Amino acid sequence: MRIRDLPTPALLLDDARMERNIRRLSTRLAAHGVGFRLHAKTLKCVEAARRAMTAPHGPVAVSTLAEAEWFADGGVHDICYAVGIVPCKFERALALRRRGVKLSLLLDSAEAARALAAFGEARDHAFDVLLEIDCDGHRSGLSPESAGLGEAAGVLAAHGQHVAGVLTHAGSAYDLAAPSARAFAALAEQERSAAVAAASALRAAGHACPVVSVGSTPTALFCQDFSGLTEVRAGVHVVQDLVMAGLGVCAVEDIALSVLCTVIGRRESDGALVTDAGWTALSRDAGLPGRFADVGYGLVLAEDGTLLAGLRVAETNQEHGVITARPKSATPAFPVGTPLRILPVHACATASGFDAVHLCRGAETMDVWTRCRGW
Amino acid sequence: MRIRDLPTPALLLDDARMERNIRRLSTRLAAHGVGFRLHAKTLKCVEAARRAMTAPHGPVAVSTLAEAEWFADGGVHDICYAVGIVPCKFERALALRRRGVKLSLLLDSAEAARALAAFGEARDHAFDVLLEIDCDGHRSGLSPESAGLGEAAGVLAAHGQHVAGVLTHAGSAYDLAAPSARAFAALAEQERSAAVAAASALRAAGHACPVVSVGSTPTALFCQDFSGLTEVRAGVHVVQDLVMAGLGVCAVEDIALSVLCTVIGRRESDGALVTDAGWTALSRDAGLPGRFADVGYGLVLAEDGTLLAGLRVAETNQEHGVITARPKSATPAFPVGTPLRILPVHACATASGFDAVHLCRGAETMDVWTRCRGW
Repeated sequence: MRIRDLPTPALLLDDARMERNIRRLSTRLAAHGVGFRLHAKTLKCVEAARRAMTAPHGPVAVSTLAEAEWFADGGVHDICYAVGIVPCKFERALALRRRGVKLSLLLDSAEAARALAAFGEARDHAFDVLLEIDCDGHRSGLSPESAGLGEAAGVLAAHGQHVAGVLTHAGSAYDLAAPSARAFAALAEQERSAAVAAASALRAAGHACPVVSVGSTPTALFCQDFSGLTEVRAGVHVVQDLVMAGLGVCAVEDIALSVLCTVIGRRESDGALVTDAGWTALSRDAGLPGRFADVGYGLVLAEDGTLLAGLRVAETNQEHGVITARPKSATPAFPVGTPLRILPVHACATASGFDAVHLCRGAETMDVWTRCRGW
Repeated sequence: MRIRDLPTPALLLDDARMERNIRRLSTRLAAHGVGFRLHAKTLKCVEAARRAMTAPHGPVAVSTLAEAEWFADGGVHDICYAVGIVPCKFERALALRRRGVKLSLLLDSAEAARALAAFGEARDHAFDVLLEIDCDGHRSGLSPESAGLGEAAGVLAAHGQHVAGVLTHAGSAYDLAAPSARAFAALAEQERSAAVAAASALRAAGHACPVVSVGSTPTALFCQDFSGLTEVRAGVHVVQDLVMAGLGVCAVEDIALSVLCTVIGRRESDGALVTDAGWTALSRDAGLPGRFADVGYGLVLAEDGTLLAGLRVAETNQEHGVITARPKSATPAFPVGTPLRILPVHACATASGFDAVHLCRGAETMDVWTRCRGW
């Protein structure tokens, strides 16, 4: 089938670029002898995950319990739910564990540990629990030196829960003031050393702490020293996006995801192209405020994947995208009905609007894969 | 059922606020004797639309053909697909027409008119076609004086298609430099006069042009003169949002939509609250750049709907929201597991992440309604 025969907007996944992106990281991690856990939150798609996982059953990290259930249904049974667990999600997590899924849970306080430990004890179940470590002040987690770390682990162990290890994520990688290979390598070392320090502290307190998990796409791709780590997590590297290209993590030509759209018309006043890919298809994610402003809500490809240099999605409404060149007068007058493809600013956000992704090679589609949605 | 028993994140719709919002506009339009066409793109929910439509069968405007099919399945049979039609969507539009749905289509060029006319003629079908008018340079449409207007209508009529009328949308209402009741009234007059002028031009050329349709929530609520109009379209007025409150179109207390979330933890470094409502639940829509910065990605309510003054969602990641007060030290230390509600910046974008909406009164849920998704 030709991609131009798909109803638009549609999410396209370039097979060759995806394979190249997957190999780039897997080759690197294999050379260093460290494990890999795919973060599946970008595509949320079992078929795509099978390309990137080290084995058909995993391992993966997920961002919702709906994903955990989706991947379990797809035969993946080593799953880390990498968002802090709260009481309203205990029952669903237990149901997955009782199905035989090796599901690990995450938390970052003695308070959360007490709630989970009480539930586990009451239900006669030992959960595998990872303690979230803060390596860069990005979002959440305990610092490796925090008294809360030993306290949380102690609460879990005292109530028969399994302290499976530590997990950290250098989310500040996406926000570096001066991104470079050297800066990512330095951040990766900060991520590694925080995780290893936390694991050492827990081991000193008598917890075996078998898992030491780190990761983000930039740190995974530029890390120089993996010692003390058992696994690296990454996900967006499979498809890449304009944020990653803007950070220098990949080239624009590596981006494997795009949104197929159709030209609806041309604005009378300035010749801008209006398409049917608005923010429901592209998302309103324009990267970090003030960064990557030159790509707007996405760069533009021809139907066959060739970059149309100088064009970008300058505006989005719910079901309208507005494409302009700079200067606007240079915007080409494509006819109504012309298919175009938009490269995503943030692949996770763009993919989240779609229920399926079309695998393609050039201007042909090979397969259609269903995505998990919701929570 | 108590809302705190829902899995989070969940989309909540306050019944009383919705009813008040619906009455505010319906009372106004009834007093002026002008028709009302609900734009269903915010909630995309048949049950909610039944509260706002003037009759169980419509009329509605929709932003995707998936919505048109969804509403047709729900018994609504007067539907305007208010986004420019392109060839890859002709077959689905025809299928709806052949089911007996009074579906009108939109276009804004002789080029698009030629494509649709050729298809209609080949399939022996007369479509109802609205010509899109540009009243404010916002996005798309023909100016009332454009030669393209008569040309498009002429092409349609010559090939047996029905020139049903004109439609315009003052999208710049959301972007006024100095929003006020007076400014919205002036823009409404600009919207009205553009539509009426276009209809007059078409009538002078021999087209009956029965429909003269205008609308946006701000112009609908502040319009002073509806003469010459047959219908007003609005949609977000049903639930309102922080953009509308920021523009002075409604009060924060009118916002009927919120996202229920759960406190996952507190950031060690600054006491920020971390919740499970990230951008998949709230969207990355932060309103217009530089506007409404004080609301971040949303304001915060207690479980019962009481505004927690001073709190806002300052950051969002995929499945994490970060809530802070200003100063951050004033952020309350809610326990892990606390349910909170987030008011949306842009209701359409926030709702788009959810497959269902929970109707609620106070802290109790009354019903759950399914939403249309995709295209």
